[in-house]
Amino acid sequence: MSEFQETLYEGYGQRLQMDRLLHEVRSEQQHLVIFENARMGRVMALDGVIRTAEADDFIGHEMLAHVPIFAHGLARRVLIIGGDDGGILREVARHRDIESITLLGTDPAVVALCREFLPNHSAGAFDDPRLQISHEDVLQFLATTEQRFDVILGASTAGEVLSSEEFYHASRRCLNDDGILVVRTGVPFMQLGELQSAAKRMQGLFADWHFYQAAAPTCIGGALAFAWGACSVESRKLPLETLAQRFAGSGIVTRYYNPHIHVGAFALPQYVLQAIGKPSND
Amino acid sequence: MSEFQETLYEGYGQRLQMDRLLHEVRSEQQHLVIFENARMGRVMALDGVIRTAEADDFIGHEMLAHVPIFAHGLARRVLIIGGDDGGILREVARHRDIESITLLGTDPAVVALCREFLPNHSAGAFDDPRLQISHEDVLQFLATTEQRFDVILGASTAGEVLSSEEFYHASRRCLNDDGILVVRTGVPFMQLGELQSAAKRMQGLFADWHFYQAAAPTCIGGALAFAWGACSVESRKLPLETLAQRFAGSGIVTRYYNPHIHVGAFALPQYVLQAIGKPSND
Repeated sequence: MSEFQETLYEGYGQRLQMDRLLHEVRSEQQHLVIFENARMGRVMALDGVIRTAEADDFIGHEMLAHVPIFAHGLARRVLIIGGDDGGILREVARHRDIESITLLGTDPAVVALCREFLPNHSAGAFDDPRLQISHEDVLQFLATTEQRFDVILGASTAGEVLSSEEFYHASRRCLNDDGILVVRTGVPFMQLGELQSAAKRMQGLFADWHFYQAAAPTCIGGALAFAWGACSVESRKLPLETLAQRFAGSGIVTRYYNPHIHVGAFALPQYVLQAIGKPSND
Repeated sequence: MSEFQETLYEGYGQRLQMDRLLHEVRSEQQHLVIFENARMGRVMALDGVIRTAEADDFIGHEMLAHVPIFAHGLARRVLIIGGDDGGILREVARHRDIESITLLGTDPAVVALCREFLPNHSAGAFDDPRLQISHEDVLQFLATTEQRFDVILGASTAGEVLSSEEFYHASRRCLNDDGILVVRTGVPFMQLGELQSAAKRMQGLFADWHFYQAAAPTCIGGALAFAWGACSVESRKLPLETLAQRFAGSGIVTRYYNPHIHVGAFALPQYVLQAIGKPSND
């Protein structure tokens, strides 16, 4: 039985038994594997790094989608950047009030593979009539589109472009009043620099910025952080009761998200606050 | 360069490069190693399971100690069960108002090894004049002592006894009015049964019970849970401002804990609430 060893960090990593290899693509540009692991379900890894796993994808995808959408309260137009596996799309699509979902995918071949080998990730959401898929260049799209969005979600599969200054500026341009940008950033304990860089990008650009966290097992190294840039300072300060009403009203049944989790996720530990130059969680 | 592979779970685990082996004890009863890893600092593993690591011990130890002590507000007598490495002791000892600390260690040999090879864990706290160390049997001690405690902290190093019904009952007996028991339970995503068992023990025994969470990297599988059994329902419902006053008044400088983290840690995800039979986080 062969084993997958993640090579993301030097001298520290996770290993997963590959109970069954479902698919492998090895080219000069990339090495993609999709395999089954008894505990983590179907797992996709790209160039030695686990991108997603069936058993815990609900944590990151629910948190990336529902936190800004419930915080916004009136989101009608959502843009997803990356998220080729369809997991974020699945969660966004559960919001009935959303009228338009644009998915700016990274790689059409990966989207096709995920639809075939990770069907539980999208759970049919790729057929949602509200969805438009594009594979245009992210910065090109954001710089030129005349569309405006209420919520923009950046998934890590879109790669390094999501940490660039241009990306944050161009995203801000495409947000409606009260719009919210959330970007999956990195694991603070292991990748504090990614948070510091995102903090620098957001400062001055958004009326309010912060990070929120969730711990997803296959994203090793402790909790994972999401960068939060909002055009309104109120979006992060909503009373628990407001979120509870919106959540109950949505009829959405979750496995991870709930209003207490929503509020609690914005509490950052001292060492993270210090690193991003914020005196407190307020 | 040799590698440590954790064997806690089948088919899934973490691996750490052993940059330097500091100590090894291999007997018929146990296999203990202490080694250095560039990212995680000095690491102690017992029987293939990582027990503590210098780089992230602050997360679990701060959360185990400060949450109940600040929630109590007037804790004078604290009992630590397990915690042979001295990390919890270090955090408890930082509270100047505490008058007596009893450490019920598991293994005198492990305490001695930790003092020698993991001195940053206890940071001198083993010499605190308020400390009494005992190696009496846990259940024996709890069943017979005439001492009463404001806060009892159960660390995982004490092993399976901490999940027994007797332990919860005997601990409850040794708590003062308004006393709080906290027990490091397990990782909900990987060990949901441990939380279900702890929930069953606490039901009916405490005026209020719940769990709180923190994600410590070397405790893989997502966030780690702490069981919370309190003699007063108010202890878990304190306003943020009260905690902030107590924290500021203590003069304690933390790396993880802060009042927002304290409150947010009690937010449990939906799948955990469901498993422990609680309808909500209230």
